[in-house]
Amino acid sequence: MTAISRPLEMLRPAMVRFGEGTIATLASWLAEKKISRPFIVSDTFNATRTDLLGISGATTFGKAMPEPDLPNLMEAVAAAQACAPDAVIGFGGGSAMDLAKLVAVLCGSGKSLHDISGLNRASPRRMALIQIPTTAGTGSEVGTRALITDPATMNKVATESPQMLADLAIIDPVLTMTVPPMITAATGIDAMAHCVEAFTSKRSHPLIDAYALEGIRLVGRYLPRAVRNGSDIEARAGLSLAAFYGGVCLGPVNTTAGHAISYPLGTRHKIAHGVANALIFPHVLAANHEAVPEKTALVCQALGFEANTAHDVLEGAQAFCKGFGLNMALSSHGVPESDLETMAKEAHAIRRLLDFNPRELAVSDILAIYRTAYRA
Amino acid sequence: MTAISRPLEMLRPAMVRFGEGTIATLASWLAEKKISRPFIVSDTFNATRTDLLGISGATTFGKAMPEPDLPNLMEAVAAAQACAPDAVIGFGGGSAMDLAKLVAVLCGSGKSLHDISGLNRASPRRMALIQIPTTAGTGSEVGTRALITDPATMNKVATESPQMLADLAIIDPVLTMTVPPMITAATGIDAMAHCVEAFTSKRSHPLIDAYALEGIRLVGRYLPRAVRNGSDIEARAGLSLAAFYGGVCLGPVNTTAGHAISYPLGTRHKIAHGVANALIFPHVLAANHEAVPEKTALVCQALGFEANTAHDVLEGAQAFCKGFGLNMALSSHGVPESDLETMAKEAHAIRRLLDFNPRELAVSDILAIYRTAYRA
Repeated sequence: MTAISRPLEMLRPAMVRFGEGTIATLASWLAEKKISRPFIVSDTFNATRTDLLGISGATTFGKAMPEPDLPNLMEAVAAAQACAPDAVIGFGGGSAMDLAKLVAVLCGSGKSLHDISGLNRASPRRMALIQIPTTAGTGSEVGTRALITDPATMNKVATESPQMLADLAIIDPVLTMTVPPMITAATGIDAMAHCVEAFTSKRSHPLIDAYALEGIRLVGRYLPRAVRNGSDIEARAGLSLAAFYGGVCLGPVNTTAGHAISYPLGTRHKIAHGVANALIFPHVLAANHEAVPEKTALVCQALGFEANTAHDVLEGAQAFCKGFGLNMALSSHGVPESDLETMAKEAHAIRRLLDFNPRELAVSDILAIYRTAYRA
Repeated sequence: MTAISRPLEMLRPAMVRFGEGTIATLASWLAEKKISRPFIVSDTFNATRTDLLGISGATTFGKAMPEPDLPNLMEAVAAAQACAPDAVIGFGGGSAMDLAKLVAVLCGSGKSLHDISGLNRASPRRMALIQIPTTAGTGSEVGTRALITDPATMNKVATESPQMLADLAIIDPVLTMTVPPMITAATGIDAMAHCVEAFTSKRSHPLIDAYALEGIRLVGRYLPRAVRNGSDIEARAGLSLAAFYGGVCLGPVNTTAGHAISYPLGTRHKIAHGVANALIFPHVLAANHEAVPEKTALVCQALGFEANTAHDVLEGAQAFCKGFGLNMALSSHGVPESDLETMAKEAHAIRRLLDFNPRELAVSDILAIYRTAYRA
């Protein structure tokens, strides 16, 4: 079978509203659908500015935490059940939107996360779902997947179902203008990592490659501008679009080693998802160079540098990240050196991602990456 | 407001299945949705091969005609109402899929085309809608718009509503392998024209430009191959994807002068839509050169030739079309020279498209295009 004719299922919200000021269209959409009791899932910051949504009669759960865990989800579901909503609105970054997906399918279903985790196990959703990202990174607004950390195992439990696809995504870059420079950098690199990992995945598909490469180019062009000046609406819009394209990549292709190796930084050491990805991304891009040299070269070009060897790739990608003022050493982010071996084993076990990395990475390869990153 | 942050609403079927053999997934999708009485809208050719859909219990309306008119639509709606379907399946080219959209919203609604034509006037749809293209051209499978010719006025009546968006589009390039070379060429140029006109429209948007340019490149790369060898599955898949991207362009941006000037060829002289577009496309690309020189240059490059003047653009685009064996003279397609003036007035009146052409075209400009095309 040829690459371009290979079967691919693409899921995306049937309606996506993108651009400056589109948040103002939420109220009329809800009115059209006769929705009167929306439930907002948000984080502590965004919970203070739900007035931007321009709606009334909503209940807000404002406690979505970074890297949400099972107790956090259960609290959100309980809050939703108490007010019998007819719509769930995710308003925040990936954490709020992932929680919103699960709240929308769990609320009133009598089921637990355990009952629906994995693939296609959620029952039909009984309420509308709207996603409104306030960062440009996760791409969660266009996807069908949610990740919840299980405190018992420290693993991320993945749940995926077409039932978790939003009816409407509103991507208004104005909402991202308050994101501080360091978080802008980290989330932008996360969006880019989604694109890069899908582009170089064993499951890559020409149809998704087009989004991936455009997403990487947008980050290369606009991330430096948005970090320098958070009010640069053109740069903010470019990054919101890159995050959207990254989300498109996640669905049918998904990430590979970069995300797998980043996860223990989040689950074990509470490093924010975007920062964790930034710390690991250059090392994985370099490690994969030998397996996918042409695609790696295209990634580097899209980010604005030329690289022909693994060493050059690592240097260039690290310089790209350091250019935003990110401290790239694991050691400076509270990771104890003594934990690296356990982390390497944990990352290696994430087969759902690592099996699609363009080259095999043994526990020792992953440990070597952590060790290099430790003092980067 | 910057170009990239300008608001844009994108509608697309939440589920798109693309690639070789995806037609085999229809039956299980219908079973999952508990659909037992599907109604197939098709043309005479595709009506003979509905066994490819692998479903049972369906009723088929197999009389969708090219450039469907109001009586054709009314017949299809009556046939649907007689069997109270729980799903409508468009199986064919643009005509079958446009009719399917309207059947799905009109069936059982007690309304006529007149009641719902225009923008957002259709009532909520009561049955599922699945679109399965068998040509690579129209892109109707991803859109919310249907065109029906009113015999009273010879105009195309446009109806557009989110209610006409399919729940599922299955784009299986294998279904297009039987399309003969000349129709492959004409439909491929139609897909390309959707991309080119959206790309150069006054309403163009960077987000849609990315699809448009990729669609043009795919046609440039694969149309010559598919015309030469209809069984070249890679080329067929590339063109199916280009048609899909063309459909994505139609929604929020739409076509401009090329389609407006082509319409009278179809409505008045029954020239197939794709052929009509091919005959007119080089002239409009050349006429618009002065207004959008950079974008015109990118279009020419994507099609495989360089052109710096309007004259070169016309020559290059005509050579591209003639390369497929298309006879590019209006005179050879049964258009009487005496009709050109009336046609020019009719085309000029299609303001919904012409108002977004990158330059103003007077009736005399359109007539000049018809006259040049007459003996091209």
